[in-house]
Amino acid sequence: MTNFDFHSPTYFIFGEGRENETGAYVKRFGGTRVLIQYGKNSVIKSGLLDRVKASLDKEGIYYVMIGGVQPNPRDTLVYEALKMVKEHNIDFILAVGGGSVIDSSKATAVGALYDGDFWDFYSGQAVPQKALPVATVLTIAAAGSEGSPSAVITKEEGGVKRGLTCELIRPVFSVLNPALTQTLPAYQTACGVTDICAHVFERYFTNTKDVEVTDRLCEAIVKTMINETPKVLKNPDDYGARANIMWGGMVAHNDLCGVGRSQDWNSHGIEHELSGLYDVAHGAGLAVVMPSWMQYVYKHDIMRFAQMASRIFGVDMDFSNPELTALEGIRRFRAFLKSIGMPTSFEELGAKEEDIPKLVASHPVSQSGQTGGFVSLTPEDVANIYKLCKAENHI
Amino acid sequence: MTNFDFHSPTYFIFGEGRENETGAYVKRFGGTRVLIQYGKNSVIKSGLLDRVKASLDKEGIYYVMIGGVQPNPRDTLVYEALKMVKEHNIDFILAVGGGSVIDSSKATAVGALYDGDFWDFYSGQAVPQKALPVATVLTIAAAGSEGSPSAVITKEEGGVKRGLTCELIRPVFSVLNPALTQTLPAYQTACGVTDICAHVFERYFTNTKDVEVTDRLCEAIVKTMINETPKVLKNPDDYGARANIMWGGMVAHNDLCGVGRSQDWNSHGIEHELSGLYDVAHGAGLAVVMPSWMQYVYKHDIMRFAQMASRIFGVDMDFSNPELTALEGIRRFRAFLKSIGMPTSFEELGAKEEDIPKLVASHPVSQSGQTGGFVSLTPEDVANIYKLCKAENHI
Repeated sequence: MTNFDFHSPTYFIFGEGRENETGAYVKRFGGTRVLIQYGKNSVIKSGLLDRVKASLDKEGIYYVMIGGVQPNPRDTLVYEALKMVKEHNIDFILAVGGGSVIDSSKATAVGALYDGDFWDFYSGQAVPQKALPVATVLTIAAAGSEGSPSAVITKEEGGVKRGLTCELIRPVFSVLNPALTQTLPAYQTACGVTDICAHVFERYFTNTKDVEVTDRLCEAIVKTMINETPKVLKNPDDYGARANIMWGGMVAHNDLCGVGRSQDWNSHGIEHELSGLYDVAHGAGLAVVMPSWMQYVYKHDIMRFAQMASRIFGVDMDFSNPELTALEGIRRFRAFLKSIGMPTSFEELGAKEEDIPKLVASHPVSQSGQTGGFVSLTPEDVANIYKLCKAENHI
Repeated sequence: MTNFDFHSPTYFIFGEGRENETGAYVKRFGGTRVLIQYGKNSVIKSGLLDRVKASLDKEGIYYVMIGGVQPNPRDTLVYEALKMVKEHNIDFILAVGGGSVIDSSKATAVGALYDGDFWDFYSGQAVPQKALPVATVLTIAAAGSEGSPSAVITKEEGGVKRGLTCELIRPVFSVLNPALTQTLPAYQTACGVTDICAHVFERYFTNTKDVEVTDRLCEAIVKTMINETPKVLKNPDDYGARANIMWGGMVAHNDLCGVGRSQDWNSHGIEHELSGLYDVAHGAGLAVVMPSWMQYVYKHDIMRFAQMASRIFGVDMDFSNPELTALEGIRRFRAFLKSIGMPTSFEELGAKEEDIPKLVASHPVSQSGQTGGFVSLTPEDVANIYKLCKAENHI
């Protein structure tokens, strides 16, 4: 295990009906003039936005709203939100929605107190020094953004997708009501679960030794997803299973499972180019990329993949040939994703082999030359992984 | 899963040599006049106290010290410490040691800003309204006090042991250097591991349904202990295994594994009377009590004990008679404790059957009549559990 700092100060308010306490918590955390961000009209139709507004009214808190945040949230909406921050003298940002709304809100929070262009933080031109407090009322278990210090934004022009990680944008509080996720379409639920599994696996595949405790925590989260997801797909109103997935989604990404070990975010990076170019759901892109990435890199540490296979997917260890166990684990992971309705190939995603050069060219690896903490990849490797995404190349 | 709040804002500074940063973190968290508490001279001999002092000197921070905190820390030392707080105008409490030193420091922190007797908080006569910040440099992986809002103190007069749980005494930061635990005697290491397992099991045995994610996290921690403890007993200098145990000990008790579910702290309560009367190590008392408690209550939920047996101890599930699996799990837990050198019977602990009436009489259940969130116990039940602690009554 390597040295690390761990600090996860977000206050979590978990359970049925707890969105009605949002106003009280905004007050507790010092908010007086709030910008609410949301995505589609579903939060209006469901009455959620009204309940949140009523809770703010109850505390006498001023607020304005901006809706229309898209999946793979755009810089353009952040610029609009930043205008509203100035106009209304906003001191608190409240996200009501899923990962995209939260990420857009985080970008707004960090841009609000900066004189330059907020994109500077995403392009690596500047490092944030201050930000408005940001809080969330979560409607999708997926991104883990409700408890994480990260946010990903897509530049409308060119479809470039970039992330920022910075303690200033970690939510001060997050309201997690699993019942709010009961109305999600099955596809979106499954995309969320895929993202949660990916957040764990990007931490699980490490070159650091002596990481039993974080290994076990990682395995706990993925096994929870394997156990609970079929339940919610069969019965969308299964509150208990929704609750397990929602809390697991937070734990998967506040870095409790990833401290003290090298991580490898190559699957996320390779996926970002896909959802940037085709505007597919992030989870769907990950379902295609991650097993193919595994297929490409597993020889780097066969025993680690065998451990995944055995401990997470219950594959009987082949002691005479652990490679067979490792490969079976990758097959089982892809089969699990397929079983919950995810696309697992370029074809199913609507991605095209002829676009691979374009995908590789816009991937940061084309500038940096190498990327990854488990297996370092060159642009050629990234191209090869995209090729493995084709169904005919699956193991 | 039931509704819950979760807030674990302690800042963790983990890894080799990190005690040298203590002063910098005291400064960051606003300390200017520090009372350092410690236990035995081992922190002097090892040079740890000197390193911590040097880090405070470097930042120009004033400090005074009080040593001699005993295992099962006493109210008497807390009173001494509180005098020093007044005399030296202390604004920050720093524990350098294990759970006992930390608990004593927490009691000092919460007593410092109270006009009455700090014991009021432990006897339930008063609820803390404010406290000085408290931080820790941990030397034993065991109590989880470095990340928890709880502290247990023993009243010298009468040996009454009582706990306080209150967010004000959660450490603002904790330094965890696994190398500091390498010099611990095997017995103390094993006592610590037992305490960690107990912190998990007091949460694991619940009547709440749909708690897969916290179940899995609980299982992850105990499996880590089973895997790593033999390594450190064989090679005390195994830093990696020490690190896994130390981080696991924190996760076991900051309540991440216990949110949204009923808990049952009866084993701790029953043990407190033992270590109060005989002044045995808390972990040793738990090794005797907990498997006997399990033996007494398992019929309340055979499938939950079978789950423990199967998922944690790898017992093959007996589908025709799950009770056999449950019992085998309890046997395996006791065997694990024995294998790491713990006493598992009244006899080995030096406890006497004739003292059982005295133990029961001083247990809070004799006032309250009933206690426990999994299986409610009467004074008679508590007496029966003490009887099961005798080797001849073990399954």
